[in-house]
Amino acid sequence: MTTQPILIDGEWRQSTGTTAFLAVNPANKQPLADEFPFSPWGEVEQALKAADAAFTAVRDWPGERFAAFLEAYADAIESRTDAIVDLANQETGLPVEPRLKNVELPRTTNQLRQAATAARDGSWVNATIDTATGIRSQLAAIGPVAVFGPNNFPLAFNSIAGGDFAAAVAAGNPVIAKGHSSHPGTTKLLAEAAHEAAQATNMPSGFVQLIYRTSHEDGAKLVSHPLLGASGYTGSRQAGLVLKTACDRVGKPIYLELSSVNPVFILPGALTERLNDLAAEFTTSCLMGAGQFCTNPGIVVLKAGDQTDNFVSAVANGFAEATPGTLLSGGVEQNFRAGIVALQRAGAEVITGNEPADGDRFCYANTLLKVTGDQFLSDPHGLQEEAFGNASLFVIAADDDQLTRIAEQFEGNLTGCFYTDTQGSDDALYDRLAPIIRQRVGRLLNDKMPTGVAVSPAMNHGGPFPATGHPGFTAVGIPASITRFAMLQSYDNIRPHRLPPALQDKNPTVMWRRIDGEWTKADV
Amino acid sequence: MTTQPILIDGEWRQSTGTTAFLAVNPANKQPLADEFPFSPWGEVEQALKAADAAFTAVRDWPGERFAAFLEAYADAIESRTDAIVDLANQETGLPVEPRLKNVELPRTTNQLRQAATAARDGSWVNATIDTATGIRSQLAAIGPVAVFGPNNFPLAFNSIAGGDFAAAVAAGNPVIAKGHSSHPGTTKLLAEAAHEAAQATNMPSGFVQLIYRTSHEDGAKLVSHPLLGASGYTGSRQAGLVLKTACDRVGKPIYLELSSVNPVFILPGALTERLNDLAAEFTTSCLMGAGQFCTNPGIVVLKAGDQTDNFVSAVANGFAEATPGTLLSGGVEQNFRAGIVALQRAGAEVITGNEPADGDRFCYANTLLKVTGDQFLSDPHGLQEEAFGNASLFVIAADDDQLTRIAEQFEGNLTGCFYTDTQGSDDALYDRLAPIIRQRVGRLLNDKMPTGVAVSPAMNHGGPFPATGHPGFTAVGIPASITRFAMLQSYDNIRPHRLPPALQDKNPTVMWRRIDGEWTKADV
Repeated sequence: MTTQPILIDGEWRQSTGTTAFLAVNPANKQPLADEFPFSPWGEVEQALKAADAAFTAVRDWPGERFAAFLEAYADAIESRTDAIVDLANQETGLPVEPRLKNVELPRTTNQLRQAATAARDGSWVNATIDTATGIRSQLAAIGPVAVFGPNNFPLAFNSIAGGDFAAAVAAGNPVIAKGHSSHPGTTKLLAEAAHEAAQATNMPSGFVQLIYRTSHEDGAKLVSHPLLGASGYTGSRQAGLVLKTACDRVGKPIYLELSSVNPVFILPGALTERLNDLAAEFTTSCLMGAGQFCTNPGIVVLKAGDQTDNFVSAVANGFAEATPGTLLSGGVEQNFRAGIVALQRAGAEVITGNEPADGDRFCYANTLLKVTGDQFLSDPHGLQEEAFGNASLFVIAADDDQLTRIAEQFEGNLTGCFYTDTQGSDDALYDRLAPIIRQRVGRLLNDKMPTGVAVSPAMNHGGPFPATGHPGFTAVGIPASITRFAMLQSYDNIRPHRLPPALQDKNPTVMWRRIDGEWTKADV
Repeated sequence: MTTQPILIDGEWRQSTGTTAFLAVNPANKQPLADEFPFSPWGEVEQALKAADAAFTAVRDWPGERFAAFLEAYADAIESRTDAIVDLANQETGLPVEPRLKNVELPRTTNQLRQAATAARDGSWVNATIDTATGIRSQLAAIGPVAVFGPNNFPLAFNSIAGGDFAAAVAAGNPVIAKGHSSHPGTTKLLAEAAHEAAQATNMPSGFVQLIYRTSHEDGAKLVSHPLLGASGYTGSRQAGLVLKTACDRVGKPIYLELSSVNPVFILPGALTERLNDLAAEFTTSCLMGAGQFCTNPGIVVLKAGDQTDNFVSAVANGFAEATPGTLLSGGVEQNFRAGIVALQRAGAEVITGNEPADGDRFCYANTLLKVTGDQFLSDPHGLQEEAFGNASLFVIAADDDQLTRIAEQFEGNLTGCFYTDTQGSDDALYDRLAPIIRQRVGRLLNDKMPTGVAVSPAMNHGGPFPATGHPGFTAVGIPASITRFAMLQSYDNIRPHRLPPALQDKNPTVMWRRIDGEWTKADV
């Protein structure tokens, strides 16, 4: 068996590492054919040096150059669609259709093309010109970016093709991608497309690089290295916090998406009005993709009463009837089961599920748990631990005051949802609860489950810690996500011909600029 | 002697603390009359609870309310001008005129009024509306902000009147001010004006609060407390990093301005062209305010040669002739002398100064040091340690290559300056060096010393670590500085009447909003 090469400084090279790993098909628990290397520190360092050289080469380039690469890359991915989605299916168990081929791959190429448009246009740099003082500022590339992708989106959040990659490149930064070890073959196919596009558009050799795996220590060294500009990470809270600590010590930006239980409040009037629809909507959202979404509705808060009992029963039936989805890996299954056990230890009662399912694949029964409001308030931290998978915890509050106290106990989350009736009977309670949840989540929703994350300029796929590392930034949505991989650069009394194009009197594209406080596409 | 009260929850209260401190007049080393308390944790906690209650009260308020307070406060400061600048002079040794009365106080009220204008207008929230998806987002107040002011600007960076205060309030946040212990009386006068303005404009009782001093442990508890939204800190690197560590552990934003040596490159052609003017300009900038500016030019990089020798002599003469300014405190004098000793240990040679000056006040001789490029490259870290005061280090590079290697060794700084000739003889060298420095500083200057920090929308008073904690934010400049004390809030499918005013179809003021990618002041 040959170990697959890594992509360093424009070349596919054999790793010098002495250990390797295999991906496993979660649908049949069988190892896949290809072996992938653990990279020793020396290779990471080579990648850093090549990325630094690439950054020196591109830092004066117009956005058009990065746009051309991103668009060529999107095309290259599409020309490999069948190979990519077939292998992604083998590595993740996610269905080819509609998920991988009709949803996630188009989302991925769409993100790359939106990033290209933003790079070409240039408005994202927030060019600010103060003619009275002669001071001008813009956001500009921060330097090489390390991207750590998660297990649950092999394409749209892939370290070498997903949202962080697109945003980092649109800002003008080389990327060192650290592939997720559950789908290395998919990552390699994407990297081949990226490499081809980089060559076709004359990007420097170290602009796009890929390693598959390092030691935890070397990961921490990478993200805190002086040659690195910033990092993007999506994954487990535990591993993310190790990287965060390394970065914090040296003041290096890292944008993390760590975990989220995404509280959903279903208020009494909404249940009275449309109980069955809500049960079906919730069940679909929670079990989709075996619940393996960052925005999976992991906690539902309800007020005690007959309708709530009926709702719990309806969802429990739905959970029991639905075939449980395939989990991404044996590790996910193991952590999921451990997470459910932890919730039980914290006081949660199992309503349905919590048992092994189909043993031929990584899989566990759809699991519904519940606690009273009193129980939740007695261990709000333990009962907010994420069990990543096809499970949810119902919290049944005694009354409105207890709903309020429960809301106040939520930690930072990506999303928070409210379902209310259409006649206004829930409005007073909404007005009491929504402001509390608003401060604790990145995205607030009405009458809609949180699992869909549109690539919209107004999206916030972010939120207060511990959902992410900083409440001011989003991982999804262009141009906002691009600004993470940039630094603020001010120019004071700089001779006009030395100003970067975005800050010269003549508008170099048709970008929006803020001149003397007013947004305009005009020249100075 | 009565200990001065603290301002908690809208009342001037006697502290329950059992220890107190006095300010000292640096111009005569005599203690001033008033005693100020160390606050125990219980008082800090009272302030946090009152600030939290205030935040709950104001979080739906329109920007107009915060604008009214900020403007009333600016007026209240102006009505106390003489008392404030007289006491600030006694506490800091900074001259009443022009510094305190004609420069710093007007700057302070100007900042408050600019912040008011931004709060009223609302454009700073970056309202983003995506009509296709029904998703809308804006920046919104993050919650109570703790502000730690520095010693060197008793008014314009004061914790209860300066840039961080103005920015935090403009975003809609209550402020807990931690006064600097070198000018507590000035801070109290400002707090009286703030309290009066808060009452006149019906702000809730915990909106503006003041404590003077806490233990280091309690400072760390304050900035990392669950009820706090974020912090702003300007001061020493050591104390700032203690707070940063506490915040990082719990993912709480803190915006720090820590230290900076502000490298100035004077290229050969510029020296040939205007040596004497440059020597005078540098000497004035470096010795102004006894060098006690964050943007003081602490390192000058020159290329070896006769003109450089002449420049060094001219500056040395200027330093020797100028009367050294008064340092802000005995601690500043002590640290300054220790800093010079540390530079000497790292290889720097004293050209002039480095001796006690006027013993009746806190004061030390204007001090010029130099090292060769080789020496600098042998200990670039040690030779970049800031000696806060009236000193500068000249680094004399052997040739252009060494200039490049020196540039590459600079850590993150607030500013970087280049002086070049007007005929183009320095341009090739500028083109080589400027991109290197550009990535390492927040503000790049041409032919201008860094000490002036205009309150401009395009200002970046920030830069990469260790100058600050994050390279994407500025402490000076409105509206940019306001966005530090905000979180990104997205609204997905929210019923129209529940949207905040900035995101409703009708533009609530005449704010700039980004609707479907285009900036406009129109309604949807």
